[in-house]
Amino acid sequence: MLNATLLGTGGTIPLKNRWLSSCLISVNGHSVLVDCGEGTQIALKIAGHKFKPIDTICITHFHADHISGLPGLLLTMGNEGRTEPVKIFGPVGLKNIVNALCVIVPVLPFALEVHELKERKEFHSDKLIITPFQAEHSVDCIGYSFYLPHDRKFEPDKARNNQVPIKLWSTLQKGQTAELDGTIYTPDMVLGAERRGIKLTYCTDSRPTEGIKAAAQKSDLFICEGMYDTDDKLPQAKEKGHMLFSEAARLAKAAKAERLIFTHYSPSLDEPENGLENARKIFPNTECGYDGQKIALSYRD
Amino acid sequence: MLNATLLGTGGTIPLKNRWLSSCLISVNGHSVLVDCGEGTQIALKIAGHKFKPIDTICITHFHADHISGLPGLLLTMGNEGRTEPVKIFGPVGLKNIVNALCVIVPVLPFALEVHELKERKEFHSDKLIITPFQAEHSVDCIGYSFYLPHDRKFEPDKARNNQVPIKLWSTLQKGQTAELDGTIYTPDMVLGAERRGIKLTYCTDSRPTEGIKAAAQKSDLFICEGMYDTDDKLPQAKEKGHMLFSEAARLAKAAKAERLIFTHYSPSLDEPENGLENARKIFPNTECGYDGQKIALSYRD
Repeated sequence: MLNATLLGTGGTIPLKNRWLSSCLISVNGHSVLVDCGEGTQIALKIAGHKFKPIDTICITHFHADHISGLPGLLLTMGNEGRTEPVKIFGPVGLKNIVNALCVIVPVLPFALEVHELKERKEFHSDKLIITPFQAEHSVDCIGYSFYLPHDRKFEPDKARNNQVPIKLWSTLQKGQTAELDGTIYTPDMVLGAERRGIKLTYCTDSRPTEGIKAAAQKSDLFICEGMYDTDDKLPQAKEKGHMLFSEAARLAKAAKAERLIFTHYSPSLDEPENGLENARKIFPNTECGYDGQKIALSYRD
Repeated sequence: MLNATLLGTGGTIPLKNRWLSSCLISVNGHSVLVDCGEGTQIALKIAGHKFKPIDTICITHFHADHISGLPGLLLTMGNEGRTEPVKIFGPVGLKNIVNALCVIVPVLPFALEVHELKERKEFHSDKLIITPFQAEHSVDCIGYSFYLPHDRKFEPDKARNNQVPIKLWSTLQKGQTAELDGTIYTPDMVLGAERRGIKLTYCTDSRPTEGIKAAAQKSDLFICEGMYDTDDKLPQAKEKGHMLFSEAARLAKAAKAERLIFTHYSPSLDEPENGLENARKIFPNTECGYDGQKIALSYRD
């Protein structure tokens, strides 16, 4: 199972009733935090999350609403006694930004491993495979796809049919090849068909692009910015490098995603739900995300 | 009148029910913000304050809980269309800190005037006279006294007795000297006795010192850190450069302050009021400050 929490759903400035956009993705006791604006550490507490499981932080870009909470979060993680390293990923320039912000964080009791994503190559955080992709904003900006693989099923009948000695079953089940008395046994001899994992794609801040469509392909959940609710705001969206609800819905449809949730609302949107009907005409399985929303995604087979 | 709002009363880390220590001091449509931790801009909104009147920001020291909200606040002030300069005062090193934090604040539509307080000389923000004083913390730290002078009363009987021509009354009332037909007229000829202004002293983070006692002398309001409620926490207070409630109360008594309000509670203090009785034995007019508390101070005569 993969659990996602929308810690905040606001864009640009923190409001008294909406935290800045940030998402916590958790699998098996390990968590990845996407973005960390002012107040994200408070939103984490309000949502009932601990800081300890956060091993990886993915930064989309260097606008303040996505990263200004980083020094405070790291300090709090240190105050809570963390000693294990924390990995931070983000656009080129991340090292300078982290060093500058941490001028008010003199000493941390854990190592910070800062990775600048010069290329959009996948990386791992525990069992999660994370694939960064290019967004199109006023500054260099990265979206992230998270994929949790699903182990192939062990099939004892198949193992017996293939005459695999029982003492090798466990080795082959783990995906390792084994040899006994001159015969080679492979995992295929005991495992069923490939199974679909869980895919979550997170994208903010960006205009819609073909690259995002490709990255979000067949996502179980596509969390996408919805800065503006109505189509008459297209000029602002283009000017500021953001999306309309309808544009995000079109991306979700084109990507054949299962479910779309909006985040990163303009501070001017008091009731994002007002724009939902229009978006659902394009992509029916659309929701307006809200602060503290928890989404549990399970394997489908 | 001088209005003070305790925007937050927490120390070290922002909690879900307590903002970080910060205080807004307002006189006549002009405001001074003391410290700006993570979330202070949200606390300002919750307390119903606008950003526009904030002309001056006083930073006590460079620990994250006192300054990490600065870049976000400045951005929001810019988003709200500010064009007038903002003055920031703080310890030596302030320019480097502000420059580093503002790496995520590319452009502001107003000028930032950064003043490093090499000496503890008074400065002005509109009608307020602000006197910085040395605190004793683990890093260089400054407390601030705010003094709002009280104009001397205009006394028409005195003016008549001194045979001051009526057309000079207004000039003299403003404190200016005037000459008419070879005679020199001075403000003393129309003004009453000196009147007491309003004094507010704000001090966090610090151990108690003679310097603080002197700075807080005869304050109408002394807002002082109360990191720890009970006297058994003296070892922590000494180790971390903070005060007990009882130490702050002794300072208030020695300084002959009128009223003491605690702020900057340790995150471990769920109910600061539990420590109040002990403090009131030393200085009866003691209160536990709380987030959003508004205090209006009037002239006494």
